[in-house]
Amino acid sequence: MNELRVGLIGCGAIGKDHALRIQNKLQRARIVAVTDVVRESAEKVAQLCDCTVRDTATEIIADPEIDAVVVTAWDPAHKELVLECIEHQKFVFCEKPLATEAKGAEEIIRTEMQGGNRLVQVGFMRRYDKGYRQMKEIIDGGGIGAPLLVHCAHRNVASGKGVTEDFMITQTCIHEIDLTKWLVDDDYDSVRCLVGRTSKEAPDGLRDPQMALIRTKSGICIDVEIFLNARFGYDIQCQVVGERGTVNLPDPSYPPIRTEAMKGTQLCTDWSIRFIEAYDVELQEWIDNTIQGITAGPNSWDGYIAALTADLLIKSRDEGGAEIKLNTPERPVFYQN
Amino acid sequence: MNELRVGLIGCGAIGKDHALRIQNKLQRARIVAVTDVVRESAEKVAQLCDCTVRDTATEIIADPEIDAVVVTAWDPAHKELVLECIEHQKFVFCEKPLATEAKGAEEIIRTEMQGGNRLVQVGFMRRYDKGYRQMKEIIDGGGIGAPLLVHCAHRNVASGKGVTEDFMITQTCIHEIDLTKWLVDDDYDSVRCLVGRTSKEAPDGLRDPQMALIRTKSGICIDVEIFLNARFGYDIQCQVVGERGTVNLPDPSYPPIRTEAMKGTQLCTDWSIRFIEAYDVELQEWIDNTIQGITAGPNSWDGYIAALTADLLIKSRDEGGAEIKLNTPERPVFYQN
Amino acid sequence: MNELRVGLIGCGAIGKDHALRIQNKLQRARIVAVTDVVRESAEKVAQLCDCTVRDTATEIIADPEIDAVVVTAWDPAHKELVLECIEHQKFVFCEKPLATEAKGAEEIIRTEMQGGNRLVQVGFMRRYDKGYRQMKEIIDGGGIGAPLLVHCAHRNVASGKGVTEDFMITQTCIHEIDLTKWLVDDDYDSVRCLVGRTSKEAPDGLRDPQMALIRTKSGICIDVEIFLNARFGYDIQCQVVGERGTVNLPDPSYPPIRTEAMKGTQLCTDWSIRFIEAYDVELQEWIDNTIQGITAGPNSWDGYIAALTADLLIKSRDEGGAEIKLNTPERPVFYQN
Amino acid sequence: MNELRVGLIGCGAIGKDHALRIQNKLQRARIVAVTDVVRESAEKVAQLCDCTVRDTATEIIADPEIDAVVVTAWDPAHKELVLECIEHQKFVFCEKPLATEAKGAEEIIRTEMQGGNRLVQVGFMRRYDKGYRQMKEIIDGGGIGAPLLVHCAHRNVASGKGVTEDFMITQTCIHEIDLTKWLVDDDYDSVRCLVGRTSKEAPDGLRDPQMALIRTKSGICIDVEIFLNARFGYDIQCQVVGERGTVNLPDPSYPPIRTEAMKGTQLCTDWSIRFIEAYDVELQEWIDNTIQGITAGPNSWDGYIAALTADLLIKSRDEGGAEIKLNTPERPVFYQN
Repeated sequence: MNELRVGLIGCGAIGKDHALRIQNKLQRARIVAVTDVVRESAEKVAQLCDCTVRDTATEIIADPEIDAVVVTAWDPAHKELVLECIEHQKFVFCEKPLATEAKGAEEIIRTEMQGGNRLVQVGFMRRYDKGYRQMKEIIDGGGIGAPLLVHCAHRNVASGKGVTEDFMITQTCIHEIDLTKWLVDDDYDSVRCLVGRTSKEAPDGLRDPQMALIRTKSGICIDVEIFLNARFGYDIQCQVVGERGTVNLPDPSYPPIRTEAMKGTQLCTDWSIRFIEAYDVELQEWIDNTIQGITAGPNSWDGYIAALTADLLIKSRDEGGAEIKLNTPERPVFYQN
Repeated sequence: MNELRVGLIGCGAIGKDHALRIQNKLQRARIVAVTDVVRESAEKVAQLCDCTVRDTATEIIADPEIDAVVVTAWDPAHKELVLECIEHQKFVFCEKPLATEAKGAEEIIRTEMQGGNRLVQVGFMRRYDKGYRQMKEIIDGGGIGAPLLVHCAHRNVASGKGVTEDFMITQTCIHEIDLTKWLVDDDYDSVRCLVGRTSKEAPDGLRDPQMALIRTKSGICIDVEIFLNARFGYDIQCQVVGERGTVNLPDPSYPPIRTEAMKGTQLCTDWSIRFIEAYDVELQEWIDNTIQGITAGPNSWDGYIAALTADLLIKSRDEGGAEIKLNTPERPVFYQN
Repeated sequence: MNELRVGLIGCGAIGKDHALRIQNKLQRARIVAVTDVVRESAEKVAQLCDCTVRDTATEIIADPEIDAVVVTAWDPAHKELVLECIEHQKFVFCEKPLATEAKGAEEIIRTEMQGGNRLVQVGFMRRYDKGYRQMKEIIDGGGIGAPLLVHCAHRNVASGKGVTEDFMITQTCIHEIDLTKWLVDDDYDSVRCLVGRTSKEAPDGLRDPQMALIRTKSGICIDVEIFLNARFGYDIQCQVVGERGTVNLPDPSYPPIRTEAMKGTQLCTDWSIRFIEAYDVELQEWIDNTIQGITAGPNSWDGYIAALTADLLIKSRDEGGAEIKLNTPERPVFYQN
Repeated sequence: MNELRVGLIGCGAIGKDHALRIQNKLQRARIVAVTDVVRESAEKVAQLCDCTVRDTATEIIADPEIDAVVVTAWDPAHKELVLECIEHQKFVFCEKPLATEAKGAEEIIRTEMQGGNRLVQVGFMRRYDKGYRQMKEIIDGGGIGAPLLVHCAHRNVASGKGVTEDFMITQTCIHEIDLTKWLVDDDYDSVRCLVGRTSKEAPDGLRDPQMALIRTKSGICIDVEIFLNARFGYDIQCQVVGERGTVNLPDPSYPPIRTEAMKGTQLCTDWSIRFIEAYDVELQEWIDNTIQGITAGPNSWDGYIAALTADLLIKSRDEGGAEIKLNTPERPVFYQN
């Protein structure tokens, strides 16, 4: 196979981005068909990509002329679409979350393992960010000794309309949940979620910021500040403290300026461009792996752990910050990379 | 009074430092008498300061020719010495801790209030550090909006001989305990202390690092990483997250270097010089205030809250990280600056 | 035209890189034919790109099935190859230098203008570097006021075999020569070149470092440190001082590390990767412009000014640092972007 | 001698500062008498320092009850006052410049050498700045290899009233002139001064910025940007490039802030506080040395070289940037520290 023929399900914002990315920017893949519950959205993307529109997701998933599927539908549809891809033994890239609840992800795991082939990659793009990869290389190379602690912050300029407290965990903190265990190569043991003083800038009913505390099986303590109305910038921080040093995620690069009695640089304020290159790398690697019949990157197990951890963080928060155990079995050999 | 006549009790390392500081570096004060349970230590300092040696602490505290007392004896003696100073209505600068347990500090508070005059300053020198003061000025000036979170790290190169887990709280974290509430101008409501993965570099029996979590009455969440065997440097970090920005404690200043494929600066590795200028400012301000009959800076109430918070952090740690309330009354008017 | 059919002349290191870049990484272009004076080199690249090998450059330049030419032959051949492209009215991307001497570049200018169409782009890739572009955006946006001074440094780890003092100007400083006038949007008026204390690390006969001083027509003073044996890294610095501030080229981004009493980051030591993304952007833009029949980026006039400035810097150095005027006419309208 | 009895000549801004510094902040010295051509100024300082006022400088210089003299009179009086101090074999701290022209400084050198005792220290306070001292320690310790180049910038917010182009050299650049040769432990061989594009912010008749280029006897090339109307801050930069690395003067330390889409720190805008601690160290060391009968720090030879270099930089500028040799003899053994 020289070129991966991709069908894309869900033509909203992220769906359109991924379609154009595959079509215009990446190598060795082509969007051949798209669909959306809103026909108009699908037609718009189809025109930009010069591809066909299908009436249903099934027409894409079942088509033997389509090699792989990208799922960018709305979150509640992810689980069923991924299950259908597995049924047709088709490679599928599913945007996060794999399922809106841990139960759904568990069902995917069972089905995928029964099928005998690993087919699913979940869209945790931060693992493909250059800065995080440089950090991981340093950690894995022993540059700071064994990891002991991780301090993270996930700060947005403003919470969008209709954002709920659950969103703070399932859509925001979810990135750190997946990223951190990959970074320190460990699994999670227990979680707590604390609520502190709420910013006056936060909309009514949103206790913002919050603090997630996660402990790994080897005892690494992870703290994540989740702050959706930080105003000053889209600021993603990550520091790993090891036995002999610390390493930080680098900030995005801007020219140092001195003016008006200040020195410094601009900060990124737009979440949609902060990891834009990571999306490119993520999908290019998925394309190249899929062409070779390989799955790598975040798999269904990672999607399941992320969903479960998020569920329990919400539960802990509702219980006033109580410690809650994950009680998960070991990662199956099937899901080890 | 043009010059403060100071008597110093306790001629160990910090006692000798303070004596020489007052004698050779600061203005408007003179060491006139010293004492120590080890006569030899007192004589050594007396010779350097050209002052007399007294047989007992009482001979210093009760001497009408001595205007003020510096207590640098060993920790368990602090309480009784301070009480004796109050009894003689003498101004006293007491190195931290004011008392080894909260109960002792409570007794001091009762006695001092009964005496009707505020006389005691506790040696929390970080409030006099230029960097922390710059931070406070920015926070108080509204530069980052109302404070919501504080992230701290207290990292030492190595734990000394005989250092225990309690020491991590009562001697190390104690600085952040006092400093942080001053920085954000709030009182404490509850604490938790978590133990994570222990560094292989830590001596047997010392679970290092640990994480202290403190919540203020207004809900500000403070986290303090306490890490005594961090190896790479004496690294003191403090970040306050406000409603519209963040501010950090600046690192000590060293020349930026580029060499051998690295750019960066040296880090401080010696705790004894990290805040050396803060000690100078602290004692000079104490001298100048005392000459005018004023007490300012950390007082007995601060010493009490620090001792109580430390006690409860240890209790929380022993109880597996449970949240424990302080249940303290409001700061008495007597102790408001 | 949907896809640019490219012929490449010169299959050495940079030729091979550009061929693979166009073939595997970029969009909307395809290498259709290559040639090299060493047949073996051409065959190797042809195999990687799945394209034909031609016996001579002319077979590529004259081929109507080839839309555009990339010249990556050795420097002395550039002038004749570009002239032949112009003769056939074919778009050509020529690696720097356009010609080894200013005279050759002048001939190209005359010929290209006579032909009536701008066809040539010269390979000054730094204009496509993200950091320099961010700087230019800030300067053009008035962020630092009108530019007054530019301080540059071009530091390599080690001079390669056979590197001469002329190379320091014509191959190294040449990048700053082109970049700086673009950055501040000005033309050059005079140059000086000073030789200072030579590093013991420099090979015999190479006075390293050297300082180029260039003045623009509006009086902006540019200084360029050229240091080929700086050992510590491949370190490219650029600071523009304006009437109300300064802006610097950002260093390449690496994770901040604290370890062994140092804080800092890695430095780039490999010139071949420092601007690797700039090469991608440069050629992608060239492809996209050429498809639309547009020329943009550094043109023959820029190549001519670069060659002339380099010639005069060498002359100044030979004359002990004397100031030498460029005495060039205004940039022809034909060459204004 | 336990305490140095100091007489101070010249009670303007810097005179008053030094008097109060010696009286209230430093150890082991006391201002015993002051004088000024404006009697009122002297009386004001005398009151603050609780000391006598003398009618003439001679009454101070000749007084056997005065151990040492501080000269803070206006610049044109420095030479004669220092000569009179030498005549009376009295230690003298003279604010820069030692003399307004090199000739005057030469006369001082001759007289001081004839007298047989080194008595004069010139007020180049930057040698006492912590940052420069840290740089020198790194350089002397071999941290960057042998120095090859020095890049400096001296940027002020605004030129004061009546500031002339000569002032840019004799009052501004003079600091770098003295500092740099001390930093790299070398003497000067030749100078050039270039004028570039003038900022619109500069007052009429002041070509600002300017560039001084100085070459040392060993060939080290020093460039100094002098920019009096830089607006954005009082920005002092110094980078030494050695055979294996670079080292920079650290900026003054302020807390890192993130707010309003920017990260960075405040910059110093007030020249009068930038080196305020260096003044303290400078005078304390002068006091302590003088008590022991030692002279150290910048001496008359340094004052002479500074005056001569400044004279020749002005001459070079007037001659369009021509290179001018210093043609000075070797530093006499008498003036080696």
